Amino acid sequence: MIRIGIFGYGNLGRGVECAISQNGDMELVAVFTRRDPSTVKILTQGVPVCHVDDVLSYKDKIDVMILCGGSATDLPVQTPYLAEHFNVVDSFDTHAKIPEHFANVDVSAKKSGKVGLISVGWDPGMFSLNRALGSSILVNGQDYTFWGKGVSQGHSDAIRRVEGVLDGKQYTVPVDSALEAVRSGANPTLTTREKHTRECYVVAKEGADKTLIEKTIKEMPNYFSDYDTTVNFITKEELDKNHAGIPHGGFVIRSGKTGKDLEHTHIIEYSLKLDSNPEFTASVIVAYARGAYRMNKEGMCGAMTVFDVAPRYISPLSSEEMRKTLL
Amino acid sequence: MIRIGIFGYGNLGRGVECAISQNGDMELVAVFTRRDPSTVKILTQGVPVCHVDDVLSYKDKIDVMILCGGSATDLPVQTPYLAEHFNVVDSFDTHAKIPEHFANVDVSAKKSGKVGLISVGWDPGMFSLNRALGSSILVNGQDYTFWGKGVSQGHSDAIRRVEGVLDGKQYTVPVDSALEAVRSGANPTLTTREKHTRECYVVAKEGADKTLIEKTIKEMPNYFSDYDTTVNFITKEELDKNHAGIPHGGFVIRSGKTGKDLEHTHIIEYSLKLDSNPEFTASVIVAYARGAYRMNKEGMCGAMTVFDVAPRYISPLSSEEMRKTLL
Repeated sequence: MIRIGIFGYGNLGRGVECAISQNGDMELVAVFTRRDPSTVKILTQGVPVCHVDDVLSYKDKIDVMILCGGSATDLPVQTPYLAEHFNVVDSFDTHAKIPEHFANVDVSAKKSGKVGLISVGWDPGMFSLNRALGSSILVNGQDYTFWGKGVSQGHSDAIRRVEGVLDGKQYTVPVDSALEAVRSGANPTLTTREKHTRECYVVAKEGADKTLIEKTIKEMPNYFSDYDTTVNFITKEELDKNHAGIPHGGFVIRSGKTGKDLEHTHIIEYSLKLDSNPEFTASVIVAYARGAYRMNKEGMCGAMTVFDVAPRYISPLSSEEMRKTLL
Repeated sequence: MIRIGIFGYGNLGRGVECAISQNGDMELVAVFTRRDPSTVKILTQGVPVCHVDDVLSYKDKIDVMILCGGSATDLPVQTPYLAEHFNVVDSFDTHAKIPEHFANVDVSAKKSGKVGLISVGWDPGMFSLNRALGSSILVNGQDYTFWGKGVSQGHSDAIRRVEGVLDGKQYTVPVDSALEAVRSGANPTLTTREKHTRECYVVAKEGADKTLIEKTIKEMPNYFSDYDTTVNFITKEELDKNHAGIPHGGFVIRSGKTGKDLEHTHIIEYSLKLDSNPEFTASVIVAYARGAYRMNKEGMCGAMTVFDVAPRYISPLSSEEMRKTLL
């Protein structure tokens, strides 16, 4: 059994807990929280909830620690720290800061002789993997990544900060005609506005100026001003009933040419349609936790990403079974 | 530069030659043929065409030998033999015999200290990789593989062997309603007939009994009797004009459930739309030839499949560049 710890217990932590229960070769050993442990109720019976300060007492009891904190402030500190003591997997997703984070985790993990697998999930993660494979195979070509339809937490938060807004949710939606143009092999150059639209569902406070709210959202720099944005005012009841989920997904498409005169076009498309963004991310992380464990068992250490993990390490099957049933 | 040899020069060999020319870190050193080399004209200027009997004289001049023969009789002999002297990559695609082929190549490659990468292409190959990743991530779920729309060489050959047939081509076509059922997350159980149809374009000899030809094709065991097959009689001119290409493609879909009560459904879909089956297969093989070269440089040897190759080995980019631009 691979002994797993969960460090941080929000949506992602709960997703990891569920995913572990689906994998017969893994067991959850403990959940670590910054809150008062007595106030945190988890789904798995008989598993202790501990304070993060006690994590080092689990040094020899946990094979892989899965970090479920946020990329802004948690992971940049937690992952390098914990990699000094555990094999770790995180879902660090601030793309621009990945090289720096990788370097920090690498120092810790090399020192401890552990594996520090960062930026695991679907983007970064499975989408990155598909960008890498597609660009390696169709050298003469172009990558396209589309996100959605799905809930953007950051954009939903931005809506909620607007004066007069009680609650709100934002969906990122890929533009169908742009997707079709890419699938046709035309290799179009697409602006931000041409690739995605943003759909907002907003609950206004009583007496708030809806026209002003809509204008404020649509003109918000970085978040909305570069997009065609629609703002729909709904009631709190409608929001809770119809927009409670955290669906997401998207498309990675590689379009490329081969042949003596580049006369043949090929389209590789990878897509995800996810009912629950955190639970799918958790499922990817848990599979790669198996990889971290096995690679460390073979003596590997240091920071890694999905690019460094051969598929056989993450499968519950043996290599023989994989060749027989999946190849 | 990675020095490549091509062993066998048919459609796949020509595709490999084109793919090598797209990769700046590779050079074609020689093409080996069973025919009289003076009768074989290749696309690349200044590269020798040699007889297969002379292959061992290239032992120190070639880093990776790419085998482009057939799976029925060529590769079972050639891959183990050449793996005694070279890093090799083949596209062995007789799924049922992969374990045996793997074992044979493993003995040779372990003896020589070389890498023997087998069954590289899209199925087996990229489709296998996606079956492996999908089943590792969504443990509670089901795999579906659909092929087409594309030309099946084996089925086209079978048509041509029918009495009264001058020429013919067969397309394997996935059934849209079956694809949609899978994408809906319904996890349907699908029979062979429900997943694919077979479209035949047949040129009959003058005076041949078309009714009998159609009946013979539709009732042919293994090839057509388990499918809904349509037979279209056309002229040789129409066949040459409209059915000269070798397009193919398909879909690997993983549908799975997550959550405390398995209340969330996720769909992972990988699809290929290929103008030229052999050229795409060749592009995959050439990327993995880079992997075979690099892994052997690091001291690895023995038989391998796509499951054993970390993505970083096949990319023309360095790991640093991959993390910066693709992650």
